Amino acid sequence: MTLELPLGEYIFRRLKGIGIGHVFGVPGDFNLNLIDHIDSVDGLEWVGTCNELNAAYAADGYARARELPGVLLTTYGVGEMSAINGVSGAYAEVLPVIHIVGTTSRAAQQAKLMLHHTLGEGIDHGVYSESSKHFRAGAAFLMDDKTFTAEVDRVIEVAYKTRLPVYIFVPIDVPDILVDGSRLNVPLDLTISNPGKEAVEDEIVASIMALLQKAQNPSFLVDLLVRRFGLTEQVREMVRLTGFPGFVTPLGKSLIDETDENYGGLYLGPVTPAPETAEAIEGSDVVVYIGKFPTDCNTGGFRQNLAEDGTLIVLHSKYVTIGSTTYEDISFVPIVQKLLVQIHQNSASLKQKSWKVTRELPSIPFPHGHIKQSGFWPSLPQFLKPNDCIVAEVGTSQFAFLNVPLPANSDFHSQIFYGCIGYTVGGVLGILAARREMNTPGRVILFIGDGSLQMTVQEISTIIHNGFKPMIIVLNNAGYTIERVIHGPARKYNSIAPWDFQKLLPLFGAVPGKSASYQVGSYDQLRNVLGDPRVSACDRIQLVECIMDKYDAPEILTMMLDASNAFSSMMLEESDEANGRRRVRLDGTLTESGLSTSDHGEPRSTL
Amino acid sequence: MTLELPLGEYIFRRLKGIGIGHVFGVPGDFNLNLIDHIDSVDGLEWVGTCNELNAAYAADGYARARELPGVLLTTYGVGEMSAINGVSGAYAEVLPVIHIVGTTSRAAQQAKLMLHHTLGEGIDHGVYSESSKHFRAGAAFLMDDKTFTAEVDRVIEVAYKTRLPVYIFVPIDVPDILVDGSRLNVPLDLTISNPGKEAVEDEIVASIMALLQKAQNPSFLVDLLVRRFGLTEQVREMVRLTGFPGFVTPLGKSLIDETDENYGGLYLGPVTPAPETAEAIEGSDVVVYIGKFPTDCNTGGFRQNLAEDGTLIVLHSKYVTIGSTTYEDISFVPIVQKLLVQIHQNSASLKQKSWKVTRELPSIPFPHGHIKQSGFWPSLPQFLKPNDCIVAEVGTSQFAFLNVPLPANSDFHSQIFYGCIGYTVGGVLGILAARREMNTPGRVILFIGDGSLQMTVQEISTIIHNGFKPMIIVLNNAGYTIERVIHGPARKYNSIAPWDFQKLLPLFGAVPGKSASYQVGSYDQLRNVLGDPRVSACDRIQLVECIMDKYDAPEILTMMLDASNAFSSMMLEESDEANGRRRVRLDGTLTESGLSTSDHGEPRSTL
Repeated sequence: MTLELPLGEYIFRRLKGIGIGHVFGVPGDFNLNLIDHIDSVDGLEWVGTCNELNAAYAADGYARARELPGVLLTTYGVGEMSAINGVSGAYAEVLPVIHIVGTTSRAAQQAKLMLHHTLGEGIDHGVYSESSKHFRAGAAFLMDDKTFTAEVDRVIEVAYKTRLPVYIFVPIDVPDILVDGSRLNVPLDLTISNPGKEAVEDEIVASIMALLQKAQNPSFLVDLLVRRFGLTEQVREMVRLTGFPGFVTPLGKSLIDETDENYGGLYLGPVTPAPETAEAIEGSDVVVYIGKFPTDCNTGGFRQNLAEDGTLIVLHSKYVTIGSTTYEDISFVPIVQKLLVQIHQNSASLKQKSWKVTRELPSIPFPHGHIKQSGFWPSLPQFLKPNDCIVAEVGTSQFAFLNVPLPANSDFHSQIFYGCIGYTVGGVLGILAARREMNTPGRVILFIGDGSLQMTVQEISTIIHNGFKPMIIVLNNAGYTIERVIHGPARKYNSIAPWDFQKLLPLFGAVPGKSASYQVGSYDQLRNVLGDPRVSACDRIQLVECIMDKYDAPEILTMMLDASNAFSSMMLEESDEANGRRRVRLDGTLTESGLSTSDHGEPRSTL
Repeated sequence: MTLELPLGEYIFRRLKGIGIGHVFGVPGDFNLNLIDHIDSVDGLEWVGTCNELNAAYAADGYARARELPGVLLTTYGVGEMSAINGVSGAYAEVLPVIHIVGTTSRAAQQAKLMLHHTLGEGIDHGVYSESSKHFRAGAAFLMDDKTFTAEVDRVIEVAYKTRLPVYIFVPIDVPDILVDGSRLNVPLDLTISNPGKEAVEDEIVASIMALLQKAQNPSFLVDLLVRRFGLTEQVREMVRLTGFPGFVTPLGKSLIDETDENYGGLYLGPVTPAPETAEAIEGSDVVVYIGKFPTDCNTGGFRQNLAEDGTLIVLHSKYVTIGSTTYEDISFVPIVQKLLVQIHQNSASLKQKSWKVTRELPSIPFPHGHIKQSGFWPSLPQFLKPNDCIVAEVGTSQFAFLNVPLPANSDFHSQIFYGCIGYTVGGVLGILAARREMNTPGRVILFIGDGSLQMTVQEISTIIHNGFKPMIIVLNNAGYTIERVIHGPARKYNSIAPWDFQKLLPLFGAVPGKSASYQVGSYDQLRNVLGDPRVSACDRIQLVECIMDKYDAPEILTMMLDASNAFSSMMLEESDEANGRRRVRLDGTLTESGLSTSDHGEPRSTL
């Protein structure tokens, strides 16, 4: 006998079936009868947010921490378009967000009815869905009763395997249509493999093993895609088994435990915080660069200098390179798994090549006087604890934290590539939900500047409403200090409306016994607050507002900007003939040759 | 001698040249050197907002009130995509928003550099600009030095003439490039005409005049596009000269002064608030329907019943119909102007056909007890004053206000078609800026529900920071009441996090002497507050929080929803053979014929 159930319930059962426990979104009249079905699925919780952009950020944050797709549910047009920047950010940072949109009915679409939320008289209802086509790896338009469930399954698998966003468009007339639920007994195919390329995988693994066996001082460099594809534990195991140093990039921060004796430090080309780290990895003759994600801010302005006289191995989700040999269209996931087996079997001989990077961690005495960027960040480690999860907002916080050592078993999240200010407020909501699901121990601490916080501030009320207890450290420096460093330090546009942040938690529904809010201007006040056991216990929502000077910026930020010249409009290109790859160097000076600028009119696209 | 000036300054001089006085936006590292040039243009002011979506809403609000393009300035990717829902809303509601985006440099675009804010390795930098292509009437990509100024001029003219959004993409390497400024001496072409169709225009005007001369009880129905194309004064003049009743649609509310003796009331098909109004217009033998905008909520669910036995004349920005004759691709702007001349010349004979609609305005005694929707809205007129500008948020407020008579010379704004909750907080900022520019007398009063306010609340700080003094009336009914009426009244998703709205103004920087905040739960409290001369003077920012029951909704809202079944997924179609046009009727019942649903895969688009 066939088990029939409503399509809406089918969708949510599939999501719950792969482990997802939360759905983020905002109700609207085209999605209400879809949201209803969440209640039918035990263990799946609806988290209503204040607005859709923040819901998208929460789904992104959930995906970051949970290493499963985050689910975002919005209404047609107005909701879908409000959320799109969160979805493009998830695409950029390789995060599977499943964006479910409740749309106009199939009949209304066909008639192009001028319903509210549509774009105008006679305009196709599909215009909004076209806007996200570059920001998704797939989309299911649930238009045909015969393919409803197959389409749902297909795109969930796409999201899972590509770690990219997908869309499910659900017309308002379909959530209650009964579908065959026996299909739920067949698990989704979530295995990432390279079909027909098993021999190539073996060849790659053998080549890598041979290079490691011959190497003098091999090392690992761990980057973003390791985490995205759920390979963190495997890579950590490789480091442990070999004793080779494990370095990280900014987007790889926390993927190697920073208290691990094999941790080599954070590498960022010429702006690497610790000189010993740069010297060590640049002197390593075989570098296994796993999960490469070569953005400007992740590479010191495209200026990594790895294995110049040795062999660089890059393991990526779409290709592998070993020295000058490139294997296209092959995922590193099965390769990392096979490589780990080989390393296990050969750990004794590899262990003989183990070596250490000795980094001098600066011991800075606790300063006095007004809080400055130069003293604030170095003083933080004394307040951090094992298991802490640090979320660093775009701007000052994310760059400054690259220099801050993390405690044992801690976690670090930052949107360093897409770099959208305001992201972390919604993001931390998703991270908190994910950690609650997984029962992860430890505190969640958000570092955010006042300008960023103003973007998305209302979602703190959702955090409170759902009983989460993060510590929110607000760097109040009266505006966009990261931009003051870049340009126009005294311009009006880098200043913002002054807020009384001490009213923030009370406005958003926090009650005195279950919340606390502090304002500190001096180091001594900071120590008194962060050092207070009642505060450091983090058993209530807390806000600590740190007053700082508006022109004061962390040194690493200035160095980063100076080095990468990301804000510059000019660049020089150089052919890096030594290894056959093209290297692009950014530079602030004008190229006389003048790269052709004949392009105009509608933009080009490769997608 | 040629006057040279930087391209950035050229852009802003052109905008100022057509009367624009404010630019709304958020700085980002790809637009800072563009924003700099605003300071070079006297009388053009930068208004930095908390986030880009709100800036877009502000630019939209500015365009609504100023009847000139609103200008929105964002940074590449993250800013541009955060704002897009505001731009699509402006497109839907026919508002010219000029969205200027500071982008990556031309050289970086060509090399597809993986800079921060881009979408990924090797991905074209143009992907974001593709997302807005359905939401703009034109775009200038400032890629070619030779066409910079011509392109800028071209799209400003497009925005002005189409009353739709346009984009200007400004790579970071171009704002400081010197251009020929003598071009500024040539004014932009802002005339809306029907080139080569002057004879057709005359024919149309003659036909209309003949029909009016023959008519028994002719009338005007005034809709959205009248305002959008700057024709309000002309249409009012027509009503005055003829003495024919001037009716309005919901989106035309306030276009005829409601204290004018010729005002006929608001017409909304079967849900018209005053029965006399529906009876009068439906009995009129010649209806001149100017600026038609036939959305579901603007027509009582596509159920207008006009001139069934007479002649319906529709004047639209893209076509004209007179009875069964349609003139395609012709703008009503020159036609309205010519028609007004004819009416002027024939006013004596037309005036003989003047007639009045007598509407019984309900006189409701001031109620007592807890504030209810049924008593709140009818009691409002006593608190309203001539010159008031009412901004009614999507949801309860916008529908309830259709029933509230407005005082003399007042203005009414609501986003009834696009219908995006949260819109009015940013929108009112733009309206306030426009009114300050124009020195418009009168108070600005925003009516908004708690759920909507949570979406975009931070922009109240920008309103405070810029010294604006609106009155904000918050209907606190613990969630999305409009959605409770539609579906799932007791479902969790229609509830929201509880806020202490009395902390709102203080958080956002309001100081006691220059602000006031009230909470009222009973009619007597409401009268005490709104009747207080200190409050009604509106010489400081004020917030009045009205506590209401969460299941209580205004009757008209229930009627609207019931009538239009906008939330229903099914519809019936009928051919309206009497006048050759197709009429679509929404209905909650299932059509057995089953409209084809074979569409799936990527969405169709007609654009």
